[in-house]
Amino acid sequence: MTNSNFLNIKNGRNLTMLVDFYELTMGNGYLDNNVGDKIAYFDMFFRRVPDGGGYCIMAGVQQLTEYLSNLKFTEEDIDYLRSKNCFDERFLEYLKNFKFECDVWAVPEGNPVFPGEPLVTVRGPILQAQFVETMILLTVNHQTLIATKSNRICRAAEGRPVMEFGSRRAQGYDGAIYGARSAIIGGCTATACTIAEQMFKIPASGTMAHSWIQLFSTEYEAFKAWTKTYPDNCILLVDTYNVLKSGLPNAIKVFDEILKPMGYRPKGIRIDSGDITYLTKKCRKILDEAGYEDVKIIISNSLDEHIITDVLSQGAKIDSFGVGERLITARSEPVFGGVYKLVAVEENGEIIPKIKISENEEKITNPGFKKIYRLFDKSTDKAIADLISLHDEKIDDTKPLEIFDPVHTWKKKKLTNYYAKDLMVKIFDKGNPCYKNPPVKEIQKFAKEETEKLWEEVLRFENPHTYYVDLSNKLWNLKHSLLNKFSDLYD
Amino acid sequence: MTNSNFLNIKNGRNLTMLVDFYELTMGNGYLDNNVGDKIAYFDMFFRRVPDGGGYCIMAGVQQLTEYLSNLKFTEEDIDYLRSKNCFDERFLEYLKNFKFECDVWAVPEGNPVFPGEPLVTVRGPILQAQFVETMILLTVNHQTLIATKSNRICRAAEGRPVMEFGSRRAQGYDGAIYGARSAIIGGCTATACTIAEQMFKIPASGTMAHSWIQLFSTEYEAFKAWTKTYPDNCILLVDTYNVLKSGLPNAIKVFDEILKPMGYRPKGIRIDSGDITYLTKKCRKILDEAGYEDVKIIISNSLDEHIITDVLSQGAKIDSFGVGERLITARSEPVFGGVYKLVAVEENGEIIPKIKISENEEKITNPGFKKIYRLFDKSTDKAIADLISLHDEKIDDTKPLEIFDPVHTWKKKKLTNYYAKDLMVKIFDKGNPCYKNPPVKEIQKFAKEETEKLWEEVLRFENPHTYYVDLSNKLWNLKHSLLNKFSDLYD
Repeated sequence: MTNSNFLNIKNGRNLTMLVDFYELTMGNGYLDNNVGDKIAYFDMFFRRVPDGGGYCIMAGVQQLTEYLSNLKFTEEDIDYLRSKNCFDERFLEYLKNFKFECDVWAVPEGNPVFPGEPLVTVRGPILQAQFVETMILLTVNHQTLIATKSNRICRAAEGRPVMEFGSRRAQGYDGAIYGARSAIIGGCTATACTIAEQMFKIPASGTMAHSWIQLFSTEYEAFKAWTKTYPDNCILLVDTYNVLKSGLPNAIKVFDEILKPMGYRPKGIRIDSGDITYLTKKCRKILDEAGYEDVKIIISNSLDEHIITDVLSQGAKIDSFGVGERLITARSEPVFGGVYKLVAVEENGEIIPKIKISENEEKITNPGFKKIYRLFDKSTDKAIADLISLHDEKIDDTKPLEIFDPVHTWKKKKLTNYYAKDLMVKIFDKGNPCYKNPPVKEIQKFAKEETEKLWEEVLRFENPHTYYVDLSNKLWNLKHSLLNKFSDLYD
Repeated sequence: MTNSNFLNIKNGRNLTMLVDFYELTMGNGYLDNNVGDKIAYFDMFFRRVPDGGGYCIMAGVQQLTEYLSNLKFTEEDIDYLRSKNCFDERFLEYLKNFKFECDVWAVPEGNPVFPGEPLVTVRGPILQAQFVETMILLTVNHQTLIATKSNRICRAAEGRPVMEFGSRRAQGYDGAIYGARSAIIGGCTATACTIAEQMFKIPASGTMAHSWIQLFSTEYEAFKAWTKTYPDNCILLVDTYNVLKSGLPNAIKVFDEILKPMGYRPKGIRIDSGDITYLTKKCRKILDEAGYEDVKIIISNSLDEHIITDVLSQGAKIDSFGVGERLITARSEPVFGGVYKLVAVEENGEIIPKIKISENEEKITNPGFKKIYRLFDKSTDKAIADLISLHDEKIDDTKPLEIFDPVHTWKKKKLTNYYAKDLMVKIFDKGNPCYKNPPVKEIQKFAKEETEKLWEEVLRFENPHTYYVDLSNKLWNLKHSLLNKFSDLYD
């Protein structure tokens, strides 16, 4: 990987300095107190699925890999930091010679993930493991948010293609670019974002805007001009003036008078406003009667999973959807609240677990260096539960396994005929990338397969069953022994 | 301006291909129909203020300038487009030799702006004026959204400093970087985003995270270590274990035992969780009794304008705020719905206005090449109304002016003792940049001054008065004459 490929943005750019300033003041402080090299373990995890859903779709590992592979402070960066008058020369020298040395594990992209489990774990000198916090969170929070939203919207479409159309309303350029990438991971079949096709080999598509129609003297003339240029991909936008009184009649006239003599079939019509259910039913009937049963109806007006579910249940006749602002910003819940917490340090080679307590139980962290096992039913291939264990615990899935609810510990379940999958993969070994990121289309396929392994009660949009994320006996005991040490703070 | 400075991202990047694919299919179609050079006028405008507010703060003109100054298709871009098998060689040749030739006008950054008025107007060959749609919308929509949200949050803080802390929850890297820029324009005093200071000369700051506290054997040891490194800027995070039972007593102990003998005063404490009102009142009292009346209390827990208003009205003792995810994503309403519409074309040198009609009256556009006058009361300097007129109308503000409500036309108002300000500036002349973008800190100051010229009824958070955006007589008549032509579509 070269710098020119950094973050896959054409021409490259260096985002090493995209970092919360406190990572730098802490870094300087760690060195100043001679603990900069102390080995620390950090987990990135989230606490709640957006939109009340049952799971999230992990995304962003490729960009995280590219970021971590290209950390580099320039002379200009060092000079700027020096000008802040709060950093020691020793720290600036450290940054100048910065070489990433951490081990990093992550859940591969496309996996369904659940609250409380580590999505990324970093082990290394605390100065470094701390420094990368901002970009790990920024990268995974954003892409997981959009992949998760896209997955909801695509499931609502029930197999109909969904195209991502949101660049113009995204929150910044990367919001559009990586948002398009994440939308594809979640299930979208294409994007309107051209640069995303160049960068990620995901299909870009698009036809015309209302301005095309307005430019010509009449809607008919505009359709005619379009059809002559694109006879083999003729999709006409029919709502500039009035769908039923103008757009559709003009489209059919052009299909009959222009396209047919040229020897082509039309591909579709697009409707971008108005009463979707009413209009699509009417249009379908009129198209069918005109002999255009194969012409698709494409809808693209402020859609999300709820509106799509609604119009389909009302019998709207839609073949595919273009989804914009509500997908690219995850409008209904635009924040993915991933956090990055210290979970252990090493003292003389021994791992000492650390806990972050809180008066809010949800905010108490799972201590220690951990891994995640996903447990599947052998007969159905469905996921039963995730089990978070300490890193050195092994599950022998030839033997029965008893799991229990970490809060209501009397709720137990004995598993037989199951298999266990180790969910996290190592992506950096002592600072060197050691994982091959798959192409986006493969991640999309994987996400679909893994999502289908969830019970439909977990897939539900509203009030899904809570998927079990349990702790191993050893981890549960460790956590509670640490909590007991702080019990005087709760009286 | 050089390419290496493009979009001000360090090391540069080329976002020419960040474009909705349909801009390209239309471009090819315009050329194919021999109308690519037809002169067209497009307006960017929005229809509704987010969060039910009374106005927005314009932002993004500098990045728009940089984008338009650096449009360039590489060989690789041309090859990629050729591989799509839908573009003529003539079009690819056009792109290869692309030279931006449009005139562009914009409302300068920091101005309060209102629904329905053009924020950006582009005049030029339709192929080009169409092409830039995606990036104009993406740039101005994002930055205006965040500047507007920031302005609300900063006004709620009633003069207390507000710091932008949201990078980790932003929607992508640019969401963090340009979000920080926009947050400063809206009124924030600083950001945690380090690279934003380098790029925009806006102050970056930050101290410590909970991980610093956790790393040391005790909270006291952690505070002591910090204080020794940063005696001159000692702000301690006191909520890792328990604010009142542990954090604050330890902080005061360190202030007394470590900092005082070193000859320094502490700067502040930060609280990131819990009951803000209760905790800050208690902390203020304890700090004061310990002789630390000058030590500031900084709060940073999921804040927005409503929570800030709430806790201040309850008497919380807060000196400054750190605001994260709810600002950087404009969480309460994360979409800014700016649109870009064709409003006129030239035929034989004459401007022919175009209108986009809709069954939804709000979506009907204002036709023609226009300008905006902001009308101020001479005696109070308060803004009375905006008047959108045709581009060649001049207001003689030495004479009385009658304005009227464009919907309820019988509501009229006669202005005397007023002055008129032409709001839009030309930023490109025949493709050449002709406007000097001011530094961000100047834009911030300007935004504050211009906002203070609005009546407090417009500034209100909930149910503000609607600021008048009227049409000149000439424009109103033009619009209605065009609408009447389409009246048969509404029967």
